[in-house]
Amino acid sequence: MTTYKETRTESDSLGEIQVPADRLWGAQTQRSLIHFDIGDDRMPKAVYHAYGYVKKAAAIVNARAGRLPQWKADAIVEVADEVIAGRLDDEFPLYVWQTGSGTQSNMNVNEVISNRAIQMLGGRLGTKDPIHPNDHVNMGQSSNDTFVTAMHLAAVEAVEGGLLPAARRLRDAAAEKSRQWADVVKIGRTHLEDATPLTVGQEWSGYAAQLDDAADHLAATAKGLYRLAIGGTAVGTGLNAPPGFAEEVAAEIAELTGHPFTGATNPFAAQASCDTLVRVSAAIKALAVPLFKFANDMRWLGSGPRSGLHELILPSNEPGSSIMPGKVNPTQAEAMLMVCIQVMADDSAVSAAGAEGNFELNAFRPLIINNVLHSARILTDMIDHFRKFLVADARLDTERLTENVERSIMMVTALSPVIGYDSAAKIAHRALDEDLTLKEAALKSGVDEKLFDRVVVPERLTRPGTADGT
Amino acid sequence: MTTYKETRTESDSLGEIQVPADRLWGAQTQRSLIHFDIGDDRMPKAVYHAYGYVKKAAAIVNARAGRLPQWKADAIVEVADEVIAGRLDDEFPLYVWQTGSGTQSNMNVNEVISNRAIQMLGGRLGTKDPIHPNDHVNMGQSSNDTFVTAMHLAAVEAVEGGLLPAARRLRDAAAEKSRQWADVVKIGRTHLEDATPLTVGQEWSGYAAQLDDAADHLAATAKGLYRLAIGGTAVGTGLNAPPGFAEEVAAEIAELTGHPFTGATNPFAAQASCDTLVRVSAAIKALAVPLFKFANDMRWLGSGPRSGLHELILPSNEPGSSIMPGKVNPTQAEAMLMVCIQVMADDSAVSAAGAEGNFELNAFRPLIINNVLHSARILTDMIDHFRKFLVADARLDTERLTENVERSIMMVTALSPVIGYDSAAKIAHRALDEDLTLKEAALKSGVDEKLFDRVVVPERLTRPGTADGT
Amino acid sequence: MTTYKETRTESDSLGEIQVPADRLWGAQTQRSLIHFDIGDDRMPKAVYHAYGYVKKAAAIVNARAGRLPQWKADAIVEVADEVIAGRLDDEFPLYVWQTGSGTQSNMNVNEVISNRAIQMLGGRLGTKDPIHPNDHVNMGQSSNDTFVTAMHLAAVEAVEGGLLPAARRLRDAAAEKSRQWADVVKIGRTHLEDATPLTVGQEWSGYAAQLDDAADHLAATAKGLYRLAIGGTAVGTGLNAPPGFAEEVAAEIAELTGHPFTGATNPFAAQASCDTLVRVSAAIKALAVPLFKFANDMRWLGSGPRSGLHELILPSNEPGSSIMPGKVNPTQAEAMLMVCIQVMADDSAVSAAGAEGNFELNAFRPLIINNVLHSARILTDMIDHFRKFLVADARLDTERLTENVERSIMMVTALSPVIGYDSAAKIAHRALDEDLTLKEAALKSGVDEKLFDRVVVPERLTRPGTADGT
Amino acid sequence: MTTYKETRTESDSLGEIQVPADRLWGAQTQRSLIHFDIGDDRMPKAVYHAYGYVKKAAAIVNARAGRLPQWKADAIVEVADEVIAGRLDDEFPLYVWQTGSGTQSNMNVNEVISNRAIQMLGGRLGTKDPIHPNDHVNMGQSSNDTFVTAMHLAAVEAVEGGLLPAARRLRDAAAEKSRQWADVVKIGRTHLEDATPLTVGQEWSGYAAQLDDAADHLAATAKGLYRLAIGGTAVGTGLNAPPGFAEEVAAEIAELTGHPFTGATNPFAAQASCDTLVRVSAAIKALAVPLFKFANDMRWLGSGPRSGLHELILPSNEPGSSIMPGKVNPTQAEAMLMVCIQVMADDSAVSAAGAEGNFELNAFRPLIINNVLHSARILTDMIDHFRKFLVADARLDTERLTENVERSIMMVTALSPVIGYDSAAKIAHRALDEDLTLKEAALKSGVDEKLFDRVVVPERLTRPGTADGT
Repeated sequence: MTTYKETRTESDSLGEIQVPADRLWGAQTQRSLIHFDIGDDRMPKAVYHAYGYVKKAAAIVNARAGRLPQWKADAIVEVADEVIAGRLDDEFPLYVWQTGSGTQSNMNVNEVISNRAIQMLGGRLGTKDPIHPNDHVNMGQSSNDTFVTAMHLAAVEAVEGGLLPAARRLRDAAAEKSRQWADVVKIGRTHLEDATPLTVGQEWSGYAAQLDDAADHLAATAKGLYRLAIGGTAVGTGLNAPPGFAEEVAAEIAELTGHPFTGATNPFAAQASCDTLVRVSAAIKALAVPLFKFANDMRWLGSGPRSGLHELILPSNEPGSSIMPGKVNPTQAEAMLMVCIQVMADDSAVSAAGAEGNFELNAFRPLIINNVLHSARILTDMIDHFRKFLVADARLDTERLTENVERSIMMVTALSPVIGYDSAAKIAHRALDEDLTLKEAALKSGVDEKLFDRVVVPERLTRPGTADGT
Repeated sequence: MTTYKETRTESDSLGEIQVPADRLWGAQTQRSLIHFDIGDDRMPKAVYHAYGYVKKAAAIVNARAGRLPQWKADAIVEVADEVIAGRLDDEFPLYVWQTGSGTQSNMNVNEVISNRAIQMLGGRLGTKDPIHPNDHVNMGQSSNDTFVTAMHLAAVEAVEGGLLPAARRLRDAAAEKSRQWADVVKIGRTHLEDATPLTVGQEWSGYAAQLDDAADHLAATAKGLYRLAIGGTAVGTGLNAPPGFAEEVAAEIAELTGHPFTGATNPFAAQASCDTLVRVSAAIKALAVPLFKFANDMRWLGSGPRSGLHELILPSNEPGSSIMPGKVNPTQAEAMLMVCIQVMADDSAVSAAGAEGNFELNAFRPLIINNVLHSARILTDMIDHFRKFLVADARLDTERLTENVERSIMMVTALSPVIGYDSAAKIAHRALDEDLTLKEAALKSGVDEKLFDRVVVPERLTRPGTADGT
Repeated sequence: MTTYKETRTESDSLGEIQVPADRLWGAQTQRSLIHFDIGDDRMPKAVYHAYGYVKKAAAIVNARAGRLPQWKADAIVEVADEVIAGRLDDEFPLYVWQTGSGTQSNMNVNEVISNRAIQMLGGRLGTKDPIHPNDHVNMGQSSNDTFVTAMHLAAVEAVEGGLLPAARRLRDAAAEKSRQWADVVKIGRTHLEDATPLTVGQEWSGYAAQLDDAADHLAATAKGLYRLAIGGTAVGTGLNAPPGFAEEVAAEIAELTGHPFTGATNPFAAQASCDTLVRVSAAIKALAVPLFKFANDMRWLGSGPRSGLHELILPSNEPGSSIMPGKVNPTQAEAMLMVCIQVMADDSAVSAAGAEGNFELNAFRPLIINNVLHSARILTDMIDHFRKFLVADARLDTERLTENVERSIMMVTALSPVIGYDSAAKIAHRALDEDLTLKEAALKSGVDEKLFDRVVVPERLTRPGTADGT
Repeated sequence: MTTYKETRTESDSLGEIQVPADRLWGAQTQRSLIHFDIGDDRMPKAVYHAYGYVKKAAAIVNARAGRLPQWKADAIVEVADEVIAGRLDDEFPLYVWQTGSGTQSNMNVNEVISNRAIQMLGGRLGTKDPIHPNDHVNMGQSSNDTFVTAMHLAAVEAVEGGLLPAARRLRDAAAEKSRQWADVVKIGRTHLEDATPLTVGQEWSGYAAQLDDAADHLAATAKGLYRLAIGGTAVGTGLNAPPGFAEEVAAEIAELTGHPFTGATNPFAAQASCDTLVRVSAAIKALAVPLFKFANDMRWLGSGPRSGLHELILPSNEPGSSIMPGKVNPTQAEAMLMVCIQVMADDSAVSAAGAEGNFELNAFRPLIINNVLHSARILTDMIDHFRKFLVADARLDTERLTENVERSIMMVTALSPVIGYDSAAKIAHRALDEDLTLKEAALKSGVDEKLFDRVVVPERLTRPGTADGT
């Protein structure tokens, strides 16, 4: 526990407590700091920025209805703008591992806005006068409705402002490669084993399509975040908030942020669960899944330089070994694979926590928002790095690609509709057993050379169609 | 390894092998049985039934285009109908833990259809003549496109035919309870601690709303399953399938099943990944999350009968103890909690497997479909049982509910907007410390009795609104 | 719900109920069948076989103390022996998803033993006379202590009787390959990229060592299973069981099974948790981790045959494709990868369920034992299959191995201590950029040929030591 | 990307690059900073402190053998001591999401030690002269052996220096409560339902025992960390390290740290896997499991104050609600539950990453060590907070406890051996149906009052023994 040089007295319903003299937070923040300095995980700043909008919107609505004097609302709004802008970030020191409702972070916001407003209005810190943290800043609100509201705002920003655009930038980069390499034929691989050919462009169109679908699903899922719990107060009934408060505050937040927020369909579900965030987390995970595959393919296709697959030449970003001179590794791909595993693990935490709500509250919220924002953040950054430092400058080892196609046996598949699967299989086994090219094996097995040359044309095999033209 | 009394010889490209004389499967099925008799997990029958549609539709399309003689197609269609109807279930003995592409199950289907057709046409089993498992039953197809197609069909049936209706039946049952108990006031609980009141109906409206949202999300996600990989053949290029095959076969399957199936947007993505099933699995998990909360609330609300919360009286379905006479337990809730945990675990397997595709194929398909169908199945059944054997006959312990409301302190919240949070907190602490009712504590603390009686009215506190009418 | 042709009346504390006339189970089993026919997951038979030992041992101890007439004990013991031998397996139809304590399976055992004993003694089924399921078969017991006792017995058998021996057989097979290939030099790979050489034998010694460590850890962890909850009865206090019952019954079970079972250190912990099984599950998972790596290496090392790494030639067990003739795939490795993912998922379910105990009981036991036994079972079988059908007949592609070593650049590492890392790096980059052999690049860069030939000797580089002999 | 005011030139095998003039790191650190500024997750400082020991020990051994001039070794040792002491923490800025081998963090250490030594020796930063990062600081080492060595050192410190002592402190605190409350009888609960009585002390002995077992298992598992990969260099062969280097450096580290470190049993396994850390992670998870149960029980036993179980009075640490005055919540328990869920999720990431090694290297190490240290850290802190702020000052609501025992029906169990299970069940149901005390119901059902009073004595029922004294 830290000791502070200079302190002032703050108080709450449990009594008085000393807080650092130069800090704006109050008693409840201080108690949380003492009881919950656990590890290094702090409540993400994005949650506080989101809370700035909530407090601002509530003050505007309260003032408009005459419940809060305009000058008090103005003060709250002014400080809320500082919160939104991140100028008071240092005043929000609390940890993730705290009360499950997020009340301590809500009170941190209430206390800081109260004290900062008092400061601006020339009052004395800690007096709660003329701006009281509960009676004014928190007017018509509870942590139970506002914290999950702030979670939604922060998640919308992380997903729509960060992750989705990044995913689509990578999708575009993959699609660009797909166009660029549309005509390069390569050997396909299934079960890691040589298969029939396709073009490099086709392979990359798959990466683009996977990302497209995953991003669309995430975007659709994230729309659920627009429904806000605000207005439900303590247990969803709206006690101490006037009728219509939910929709009015949501509309104000929508106005301030530009996102189409509304009130919750059912306030009891909205506070007793974090189901929407559970779904969003799952959709983020479902984006990590194709990214894992993409990155994994990249490092394998780039493996070598001499004893690997090496169809792809990845950019040399850093020396790869402290002992092996000249070694270069697929580090962006490795980092992506790790990030994807982490995202899947984060999601499993979110699901488990999402299931643990009891009665009128899910009290595992700090874990949930921390994991969702963590996953969104590292995945966003990782996608951009992967795009810039691996995909953008990846090149083809065309020599290797050609060689692979030429030595391929699986193009025997094209003969199958003509000579039958069983005869074709014999040719393939013969090629392998006798170390022949496919053509050598086919001719030795009695296939007519003209037939062979007409049917086994690598480029042709990358499109639908059968050897006999049906 | 089993030994069979009577056998016949079947063959494939690796040579001859003995299969049980009374079975319709062929060499590749037999090889799989030998190499993969691992545990007790068999490939779900639903996959084979789905495969029946695939084989039938392909035969129809192949015949229509003149690639397959009509009489051969007719034979295939006839056997496919037997497969669909489950009449050949015993011919599909393979295990989940087999080749990652599902090829062995596809060949199982091809072999059985071939032999059964041969049988019907008076031929000799194992001759592959006149209906060849590869050249005819599998015409224009690969396991790589058909197995994942069959996975989609089976998953659609499990989700749309089973899980979604069950979820919505439970939603309706919860909504019915919500209406029935709309006017019963109870004490809310947040952090498990007494909070402000709400009605039992409001609480149950939350369960209904959670299920509604989760079911809608699952329904929307499952629509992705309508896009089928069929037509991509070995690596997505469509080699050996004629142009248009994907859409034609999908249309035929749509016709046969009544679901709006189409071809895949991108066949490379469709075969290299199981992303759609990863998303569907995640959506099933996201349905398990509110179900866990629902069941957990039930068992706690029903706990007692004398030393628990006991607001709810759950039906006595079975004696609960082999040693404690007369004990009854919330077994449906416990089973639901376990099922939900299993569904979350199944989903984590699906994600991990979904990420492990390489190049042109995801070779972890049997695990994926087995877990998706397992989760869907146990959750479907569990939801119906939970509804019938717990929700339907749950009753209220109204005496306990009333007593709780009367002893509640947290209704002090309603006083807060009038006398301020800090004064209200003092009253609450006093009530606790001196073991008083809220009213006694309030009056002792100087609150006017008329004010108290006007403001602290339990029913009023279950609706939006503040004590002063704003 | 099934309807039965012929039934008889059985009863329990909730009243009468019809059961199939030809079945030995009673009322509580029947109620469970009705309320819990969920999916296809049945309580594993191994649990019932284990229960046979528990009931037998308890009867012996009860009779010895004079609490149970010897002739009644004899009857119970006789039936228990049938249960142990699996001869009554069909009488245990219950599902996994049932009461969380396993009471219904315990009562199933009690009822079947009661009725079977009654049958043998010439009584009338369902009369509970002269052998009462609770008063006699369950004497001194509760489900709360016996079910977790049976779980321990079943898990010991699965781990010590199945999984550990299988793991060690595979360890031995890997060690055998390690010896066999001790002198074959190959190019190492780190980050999938070419690295310095090692011998194939060294690589395989790593697989063997990983398995050795994982098996030892599992063996040590499984020893915790020897401590049995028996004797704690309902809540751990031992009510209705005489002092010393725990140790006496455990000793009897030890005698019967040959494993050193004892009573629990703390009966409250033993019933309120499944912590030992949580640890055993985690140790099974920790065995799946090196198996995943082993199998993954195998399929990559065997990839090709022409466009993959192909250092290893895996046995051709089955045709690999329904469309690509002659294709063969690393199916055992794929199945192993899937099984390992499933085992990891099963473990996550076990942990989640293990955490959910409340007060005097963990009521998630059926899930826990089902997942532990499932993991142990599929992993045991999979390991044996992987050993027999992949490892045993794997061969080296020595040509490819040699070629890789010859073309390797990373042997430049050996020069590093002599010429410095920076100069060595320049040579490596030069070799790559100018497509030279390492020797060509080194000589062009001014390295003395004698120095090169002395230092860059592949075999030498597979042992500790520096170029200058220090 | 940051731009720096003043820079100097550093170089590596890929060329020159500008680094901040006032920083000691070199080119490779800078490249990593540019390519991997992903999220906020930095490589834990503990890894660098551990690396200090590795570099120090290697320098000592290298000098002793005459491979490294003593004065160079002295300089390295001096800087290594600064690293160990944390005085150079600011020089280690790299992110978790980097190369999978940890090479960039190893090079960060090499570069900083090189430059700091150069600085101390009066040289010019970036010249690598006279102390070269690779040739001298990294002498006889690779990242592939040293990074996993540092991981083991850091994990030993986290587990043995932090987590285990904390777990045992909590165990002791629980045991103390167990002694303190040894004679207080309470109603047991199974399935959340009223069961037979036990003492509060017995219940708490269970918590202590669960922690004891989990800590012992973790301690035993962590011993595997004493085996260090050092000496294997690039791929486990020990190339460029002299024979015996592993054991000598390990012995030196043992000397420096006081832990019995040795070389790895098999260096190939030690570098190709992180199996030991996978097992340690699993054992940490297996400690989280009983902690979840403990915390969950606490919050339920403390629930109320008026409508919950409220057998326990938890300390009032903070106001619990921004809207409900006077509310207090079980926040330490909630934080513990969240931390435990996070630890389980972290473990799932570790397992998945541990399985993904390929050939001679597991390239998912940064994720693994970050999750292991994260879990250990938050769990250590959380355990201590839970002990201090919840367990230490928890008190009993003895009135409630007594009332529960008096109203209990399940003490009917004690009558069961005398009157039979079926008769006892009837009494229990009667008590419930007619709202009687157990005694009233028993007497009405014909039980003799003397018998009842002799048998149904709550204290007696908390010990083994049957009503008839057998």
